[in-house]
Amino acid sequence: MHPGELDGKWYAKYWNPVMAPMPEHIKEAIGLGPQPPPLCLSPDDAATLSDTGYGEFENGYSLFSDGSAHIATLTLMPRVSPAMVDWWFWWHAMETERYKLWYPRAHLYAEWSGGTVDRSAPHRDRYIGGTSFVDEYVGSSLGELAIQFVHPDKLGFSDNSADPDEATAICATVGLSRVPLDWGHLVHHVRRVKGGAEMRSRFWMGGKYVAPRAGATLTDELETVAEGLRRLGDGHARAMVVHCSQEMNHLAAFLPDIFDEFQRSE
Amino acid sequence: MHPGELDGKWYAKYWNPVMAPMPEHIKEAIGLGPQPPPLCLSPDDAATLSDTGYGEFENGYSLFSDGSAHIATLTLMPRVSPAMVDWWFWWHAMETERYKLWYPRAHLYAEWSGGTVDRSAPHRDRYIGGTSFVDEYVGSSLGELAIQFVHPDKLGFSDNSADPDEATAICATVGLSRVPLDWGHLVHHVRRVKGGAEMRSRFWMGGKYVAPRAGATLTDELETVAEGLRRLGDGHARAMVVHCSQEMNHLAAFLPDIFDEFQRSE
Repeated sequence: MHPGELDGKWYAKYWNPVMAPMPEHIKEAIGLGPQPPPLCLSPDDAATLSDTGYGEFENGYSLFSDGSAHIATLTLMPRVSPAMVDWWFWWHAMETERYKLWYPRAHLYAEWSGGTVDRSAPHRDRYIGGTSFVDEYVGSSLGELAIQFVHPDKLGFSDNSADPDEATAICATVGLSRVPLDWGHLVHHVRRVKGGAEMRSRFWMGGKYVAPRAGATLTDELETVAEGLRRLGDGHARAMVVHCSQEMNHLAAFLPDIFDEFQRSE
Repeated sequence: MHPGELDGKWYAKYWNPVMAPMPEHIKEAIGLGPQPPPLCLSPDDAATLSDTGYGEFENGYSLFSDGSAHIATLTLMPRVSPAMVDWWFWWHAMETERYKLWYPRAHLYAEWSGGTVDRSAPHRDRYIGGTSFVDEYVGSSLGELAIQFVHPDKLGFSDNSADPDEATAICATVGLSRVPLDWGHLVHHVRRVKGGAEMRSRFWMGGKYVAPRAGATLTDELETVAEGLRRLGDGHARAMVVHCSQEMNHLAAFLPDIFDEFQRSE
């Protein structure tokens, strides 16, 4: 949260604590409040994000009767390419200071585990299979999270072998970092549009998406934590819309330049 | 709430039931929802409001894990001087009808106790040490409050002996008026800017700030009331941002004229 922490980093100049105002379409969506669940994309249909055009529900949130929430945000990213976003999801996760560039007011800590260390691999192959442990505020609540990147085919995408400069889908299972509990799933689908890219983010969290992490047993202690994660209220869902929109808009503002400088120095 | 109540008062013409629209920066802050606690000014650092420039968190609210909330609002006050605000905090508190000018839709009642009665004392010295008992709506909730003005040095300010036309800090402990319970603290720091003044308001309420008033014992009955005050939710914090912004913007619109007329008649 302090600029001094970046002293000596070549990318220090990209740290900007001033967040851009929220886009009008996000303000509008938040003003509308919770929306009908049938409008929402289900995780089983996530891959339809690759289809041309837009879905019924591109911005806002919905609260389901099982306590889960669906969150959708559209971020316009002028001058950005899908390949830059793939680069970012690999590059930022390696170092707390990089992670802080993304959302200076809310991002506290990042640590990486797993994935490939093959520096000749395409960027997307470097984060798939790895886990980003992060501490970040969502609203006023501190989340200590394990973002486990998965191959897009796990959410049904078949086109990630296509030109990464045309589209990419960043997919992850989101869990807690201190206990082996998963909370839900996310996808950031990024595609080329005139003058840059657009990112369509989707989250499915809480309710039936809460599960012990592969191999873990749901002890009584873990069940108590799980119970707290299952019921996502209006405040939490709204905070996630705001958080996602804020960080992605902030990223879009410096990504083309930091990516360009990174490439020139490699 | 009725204009007729002001019949015969020389200041009746300043009663205006139409509130100005909320400033864009307040709408934006409310749209963002609760913010990360580490961004907030702590009461121990309140005096840094005297520093040049702005802090990380000038507008909005944050919810802390102990149930307390921090509220921050910036109000632009063209044509206003810090000395006028000092005058207002003394003058308005003496009479319900004056208090109603401030926020016709929400202010119901005001009664004054203590402070100095020396009419030759500077205005700020007349309200410091006194208590303003007020009934007012914050959102849909009626608050029956005891605003106990304290010397700014209690919050660490050392510069209130400086020119009152350059800056002033109005500091108070806020409690309930019917039971001896304090709820939190506030400061309105006002400084000269080009063309007028700006007011930076800060509230720390609920949670650890709830305490029996000097000398009072925390009986079981009082503890029940305290328990209710400790946990401030999203709705209450948001209502306080709106309330403070509304009343201070409304005040700014008539303060230069009413102060001028008051001075000419003295």
